Amino acid sequence: MSGYDDLMAFQRETEALSQVAGRLSWDQETMMPKGAAEQRGEEMAAMEGMLHARRVDPRIGEWLEAAEAVDDVAKAQLREIRRSYERYAKVPAKLASEIARVTSRAQGIWAEARAAEDVAAFLPVLDEVVRLKREEGQALANGGGVYDAMLGDYEPGATGAELEAMFGALRPRLVDLRDRVLDAGPAPELTGSFAEEGQLAISTRLAEAFGYDFHRGRIDKAVHPFSSGSGDDVRITTRTNPLDPFNCFYSTVHEVGHAAYEQGVDEAYALTPIGQGASMGVHESQSRIYENQIGRSRAFTGWLYGQMREVFGDLSVDGPEAFYAAANRVHRGYIRTEADEVQYNLHVLLRFDLERALMAGDLGIADLEAAWNDRFKADFGYAVDKPSDGVLQDVHWSVGLFGYFPTYTLGNVYAGCLYQALRADVPGLDAALADGDTAPATAWLREKLQRHGGLMLPKDLIAQAAGKAPSEGPLLDYLEEKFEALYGL
Amino acid sequence: MSGYDDLMAFQRETEALSQVAGRLSWDQETMMPKGAAEQRGEEMAAMEGMLHARRVDPRIGEWLEAAEAVDDVAKAQLREIRRSYERYAKVPAKLASEIARVTSRAQGIWAEARAAEDVAAFLPVLDEVVRLKREEGQALANGGGVYDAMLGDYEPGATGAELEAMFGALRPRLVDLRDRVLDAGPAPELTGSFAEEGQLAISTRLAEAFGYDFHRGRIDKAVHPFSSGSGDDVRITTRTNPLDPFNCFYSTVHEVGHAAYEQGVDEAYALTPIGQGASMGVHESQSRIYENQIGRSRAFTGWLYGQMREVFGDLSVDGPEAFYAAANRVHRGYIRTEADEVQYNLHVLLRFDLERALMAGDLGIADLEAAWNDRFKADFGYAVDKPSDGVLQDVHWSVGLFGYFPTYTLGNVYAGCLYQALRADVPGLDAALADGDTAPATAWLREKLQRHGGLMLPKDLIAQAAGKAPSEGPLLDYLEEKFEALYGL
Repeated sequence: MSGYDDLMAFQRETEALSQVAGRLSWDQETMMPKGAAEQRGEEMAAMEGMLHARRVDPRIGEWLEAAEAVDDVAKAQLREIRRSYERYAKVPAKLASEIARVTSRAQGIWAEARAAEDVAAFLPVLDEVVRLKREEGQALANGGGVYDAMLGDYEPGATGAELEAMFGALRPRLVDLRDRVLDAGPAPELTGSFAEEGQLAISTRLAEAFGYDFHRGRIDKAVHPFSSGSGDDVRITTRTNPLDPFNCFYSTVHEVGHAAYEQGVDEAYALTPIGQGASMGVHESQSRIYENQIGRSRAFTGWLYGQMREVFGDLSVDGPEAFYAAANRVHRGYIRTEADEVQYNLHVLLRFDLERALMAGDLGIADLEAAWNDRFKADFGYAVDKPSDGVLQDVHWSVGLFGYFPTYTLGNVYAGCLYQALRADVPGLDAALADGDTAPATAWLREKLQRHGGLMLPKDLIAQAAGKAPSEGPLLDYLEEKFEALYGL
Repeated sequence: MSGYDDLMAFQRETEALSQVAGRLSWDQETMMPKGAAEQRGEEMAAMEGMLHARRVDPRIGEWLEAAEAVDDVAKAQLREIRRSYERYAKVPAKLASEIARVTSRAQGIWAEARAAEDVAAFLPVLDEVVRLKREEGQALANGGGVYDAMLGDYEPGATGAELEAMFGALRPRLVDLRDRVLDAGPAPELTGSFAEEGQLAISTRLAEAFGYDFHRGRIDKAVHPFSSGSGDDVRITTRTNPLDPFNCFYSTVHEVGHAAYEQGVDEAYALTPIGQGASMGVHESQSRIYENQIGRSRAFTGWLYGQMREVFGDLSVDGPEAFYAAANRVHRGYIRTEADEVQYNLHVLLRFDLERALMAGDLGIADLEAAWNDRFKADFGYAVDKPSDGVLQDVHWSVGLFGYFPTYTLGNVYAGCLYQALRADVPGLDAALADGDTAPATAWLREKLQRHGGLMLPKDLIAQAAGKAPSEGPLLDYLEEKFEALYGL
């Protein structure tokens, strides 16, 4: 058992240092003075270099050889340590630093190209990124699938083929639903101007209602909402737009979903390899079920309607039913992060297919914009109006995130499975939600899923929580039932 | 030159990581959720362990052997690297971790003992700390003076004997001045209640007036005011007390002095061993000259009086002269950090003599409280009323800071020297200060002292800035002239 103890002691320090690096990123987005950006770049690079050296430390290999797992927890720890060690060892240091260098440059070029609506300015560096990431994928794949190897960084055990089948089943029913809903005409819309102070006050009530532990976290404003940290220090950010309070509220609830997951992991796993969420997909399942299935439910929006009226007085939508429709309004739009539940996954499916084709070499950089625009027109029924609404809209590819997009939809699929089981297991859910009480739902999620951290592989975790293997059916059934009722289809 | 380049590249990373550790401490005092304290302890320990391993990395020894200094900057870098390397190499790892363990425990015991006014509860663990620190001092001293070795951690080149002589010359004239001032009767006092918002607004104006660069820093509230970070990210904190706005204002100006020093170091030295203040004493000279010689001058308080009236309306003191007297009010008190310019150094001299006696073994722990109280009565003219106002008042000894206290008075002595030269070099200083314009003074300090960072040893740095070797005379002359005029002596 000594190899195991030594290994875990080393790993515990690595996890602690990795938390520090995460907190530094939080600081950068919330507190850092503007003039510190360049120095901060060096500080982050030094942290990353130090962490990388620890992750490939040859002693890990020796400890792994000597370690014996006496129980399931130890088995899971060793599985995660082995996966990380082998992953980092496979990529030559020169390639890793080349990727860091090029993606850092590419992100700046992407931001400028998007602002200038100039696709051509971005393509050469994107070509470089694709080439380097394919090279990395080949190193990771060891002769297996390049895209599968990339997926493994975010969703261990997932394969491109399996996702292709699942997403292939999603697409036609989503396109059909989107088509019928948009044809049914506009839903009620919340209009008016809403002071930041009031939005943030309701935002805090929402976080409390969803069980976010402020004693072990805090909420700040940032340009992009995010959740950061694990264990006893999990912080979230939100943002406000006077014309769109739903953006603030549901950004908060979304990040609370991520944060509550991290706060809910068994404290015995803190600062260990399994002391955080099981995967990006499982993480997204928590943020999405908090935000959508629970937060945008008829029952809960009834409570939120009362909160809004208390803070802001009379609203442009009258009565809880119209408010529910406004909170779930389906509308034309180009931007993934602003999409409604019906169209969101169509944005992801488009990216999934294009990035797999890029990685397989079936799609050249020169044809990327046309491929994007054709696919958008086919799935959404209207044409992209400008590159910043199309192929230039997301930062992901510029920073080398290939294989990341599908975890968004996988999260929605998992959320669909979990919600089906939750409704079956917990009677009286709607009555509680109508009082703003999410505890029956969040306690079920914590018990079934969150507390386990990284103990199980993602698919196994969802299967044991939902009572059956994950599939796209429950999500589709939920969406069709909800939006057919809302739009009288 | 290759040994030098390799060494500096390694050192640059260490400095960057050390900045990260400093930012983590800042976060702990300003932003960290309360429930994160235990986890943060592990994160800090992991950072410190990693930094310690880098500081004793045997490659540093090899690089130092191979390195050649081509200019004064390189010479200074090597001097600082060698000093740090030899210092950490001298202390056995077991002793270093024992000190970390015991002082961490001792700090908690001290806080409880102070709250309970229970000296006996603190003495056993203080005894342990003294024993361990003496052992460390012996390891550092290599047969030389134990206390001198400790001083070297904070004030390179200073010796106990030299400080004893300097402080010995200070004490009688300070005791005499204190005596005459307190006899002369009470000075005008600023009374009333001052809203936090107004205090913080003036605090910000003061920071701006003293040239604090908000683009590379920020001000937050904390229980204890401090300055943190170097280069392009230097943050300060302040605090407010509705009854004592001067505490907020002069805490801010004091920390701005520290921060402006760090912000003023030549940017070519950023993230190198000489890229920060030269020593604790030199640092304190900047905070003190900003706070006292400049900030509490008749000219500058005239401007501050106008700011106060603009924000708070009529005050309990009428006219700039009474306001100046109130800002410099000498009053009985037991607490070092709340002391006025006349009495502050007497607090430090007391601690300096006691801690040297403790380290030399001339004073036993059992006799410490009596020694403190006797000395206090002799120098201040009144008796200590309770342990929290006496021997239990400071955290320093509990955390092993022996040799640190004298740098406070050394800073005041240095400030006296600098101020004398500043007044000689810069005509029209008072006219500018009367307009709230500190630029002539701060520009002189930046040019003469701040920009050099750690290029020179502390005494050499002060000597070249002030035009002669540092001594206590200018400080005493300044204090006597100022307070004799103020109190009509």
